[in-house]
Amino acid sequence: MHTAGDVRVEQRPDPVIVEPTDAIIRVTATCICGSDLWPYRGVEPADHQVMGHEYVGVVEEVGDRVQTIEVGDFVVGSFVISDNTCEICRSGYQSKCVHAEFVAQTIGTQAERARIPHADGTLVATPGQPAPELIPSLLAASDVLGTGWFGAVAAEAGPGKTVAVVGDGAVGLMGVLAAKQLGAERIIAMSRHPERQKLARYYGATDIVEQRGADGVAKIKELTNGLGAHSVIEAVGTQEATQQAIGATRPGGHLGMVGVNYDVTLRGIQLFFSGIHLHGGPAPVRRFLPELIQLVWDGAIDPGRVFDLTLPLEDAARGYEAMDERRATKVLLTV
Amino acid sequence: MHTAGDVRVEQRPDPVIVEPTDAIIRVTATCICGSDLWPYRGVEPADHQVMGHEYVGVVEEVGDRVQTIEVGDFVVGSFVISDNTCEICRSGYQSKCVHAEFVAQTIGTQAERARIPHADGTLVATPGQPAPELIPSLLAASDVLGTGWFGAVAAEAGPGKTVAVVGDGAVGLMGVLAAKQLGAERIIAMSRHPERQKLARYYGATDIVEQRGADGVAKIKELTNGLGAHSVIEAVGTQEATQQAIGATRPGGHLGMVGVNYDVTLRGIQLFFSGIHLHGGPAPVRRFLPELIQLVWDGAIDPGRVFDLTLPLEDAARGYEAMDERRATKVLLTV
Repeated sequence: MHTAGDVRVEQRPDPVIVEPTDAIIRVTATCICGSDLWPYRGVEPADHQVMGHEYVGVVEEVGDRVQTIEVGDFVVGSFVISDNTCEICRSGYQSKCVHAEFVAQTIGTQAERARIPHADGTLVATPGQPAPELIPSLLAASDVLGTGWFGAVAAEAGPGKTVAVVGDGAVGLMGVLAAKQLGAERIIAMSRHPERQKLARYYGATDIVEQRGADGVAKIKELTNGLGAHSVIEAVGTQEATQQAIGATRPGGHLGMVGVNYDVTLRGIQLFFSGIHLHGGPAPVRRFLPELIQLVWDGAIDPGRVFDLTLPLEDAARGYEAMDERRATKVLLTV
Repeated sequence: MHTAGDVRVEQRPDPVIVEPTDAIIRVTATCICGSDLWPYRGVEPADHQVMGHEYVGVVEEVGDRVQTIEVGDFVVGSFVISDNTCEICRSGYQSKCVHAEFVAQTIGTQAERARIPHADGTLVATPGQPAPELIPSLLAASDVLGTGWFGAVAAEAGPGKTVAVVGDGAVGLMGVLAAKQLGAERIIAMSRHPERQKLARYYGATDIVEQRGADGVAKIKELTNGLGAHSVIEAVGTQEATQQAIGATRPGGHLGMVGVNYDVTLRGIQLFFSGIHLHGGPAPVRRFLPELIQLVWDGAIDPGRVFDLTLPLEDAARGYEAMDERRATKVLLTV
């Protein structure tokens, strides 16, 4: 991205092994994330930077100290580099690893090849070479599925629980899928977009709430004996969505906060008297990858349906335009 | 409290049974809470209101539908009325009961007698008539012990955990006691007050950190391999203390927020990238009362040592002065 709004696909030198824990992968597919729109729209600075942090591909080369990943493996990686051995990783928070590094900022996987540091701790090999129709679902695991899944885990979605999902973008839809897989009894998707409502129902939503803000909260309470949902996933990141999510959570309930919320301010006393649990942040995708890959491999889930536009990498600029203009929920780029 | 700063002990009509679920108790001991200083200092309005929400006493009369509490029982009650049967109560959040009512605002236990609604759901009888030396500890269970305990539970204090406690007031000290009882490996009390440090050590603190703010956070990280504490209890409620508590919690760790935080503002993105769990609110003391009463009864804990000034009820005004001027941490009033 040269500057805001100016995406170009250019020849750059191939990456090489730098550290003995690195791997070089040939990217098979990558995608455009909602967060890629921040620099595109000028919300974050953009100055000739590499882009992309979601990826699947084939390992071409590994450093001397890489042990679990081999040349030829098909791999899925997290959008945050992690060693997966430090105390924070072992507690399940690989996105906050002591060696954490955002793939988006330094590596950029909207490319033919990428150097992945801490390959053992960041990448997970699939059981074999995947059929082409599995590629979108495996790619989703790299971020949107992992993030929606973390939102559902943070919200403690599970058997007997009513789960409300604020946000019908790719992450919100993956939150619905995750809540279903985790055994939630009732899943309320908050959406006013007919196509996304349909997909939410496909992924397991039992109810749709079109109202927003205070009306949305009132509707959730009406559906839950006046108490609010046990579990709420916040997958937008705006002030309104956050207030809606807090209001929709019952006392003692759990709010999983996975929308990146740059401009959100919370009043301490509101949180205090709400009596809810709050948890979230950049998803520790690496924690969930082995399980998510297996679910995709076994055909138990098909998260790849969130991609509603597929383009070749050289047309990346068109993909950004489609996402920016909301003509696409999530764009897959084939390499 | 007639107006801010004007506390008077006056004759008022004795309370009577209004609802069949009520009990009338003769108060044996009550106390002054840090939160009683808000109206005293004019932070909250005060207009000829009854005061007090911590209490132990003997049941004098019960309504027709009271089943578990009998006339003559010695009881400890929560500072929030609860039915203990609704869905929220059954999930452990009695302070957010669908019939919740703050004792402080409507009942007032700095008095000889009090009417306690939902007696079965609010009061717990002790195993027998307590020896006089147990009264302070039983009284502590009514709020400060229950609140510190909830802070430690919300922070998930337990075996193998390092727990940091922000605040060396009565609630903070009770947080230390609770962390110790819950099996924490290491307990760091943040205090610069020699007498309170001593009491913190008595209750189980293994380390004392005198620094505050960013320096306090740096010191906690130094003591925890640069990672932060697993569990942090915030028992102050100011902006500085809250920031200190967030900063002291490691990614994936748990912050138990029990300081009432009227003027605290949290930036969503800071919470997001911290990756911590946040939970707190008015403590569901009723959840913990049976266990806490038993621990006091068995002599396993002596929370009553947080009271450093005892006065007769008629000298309540002197007690408020002493708390306001920080000459006392916690004042017990005998009735």
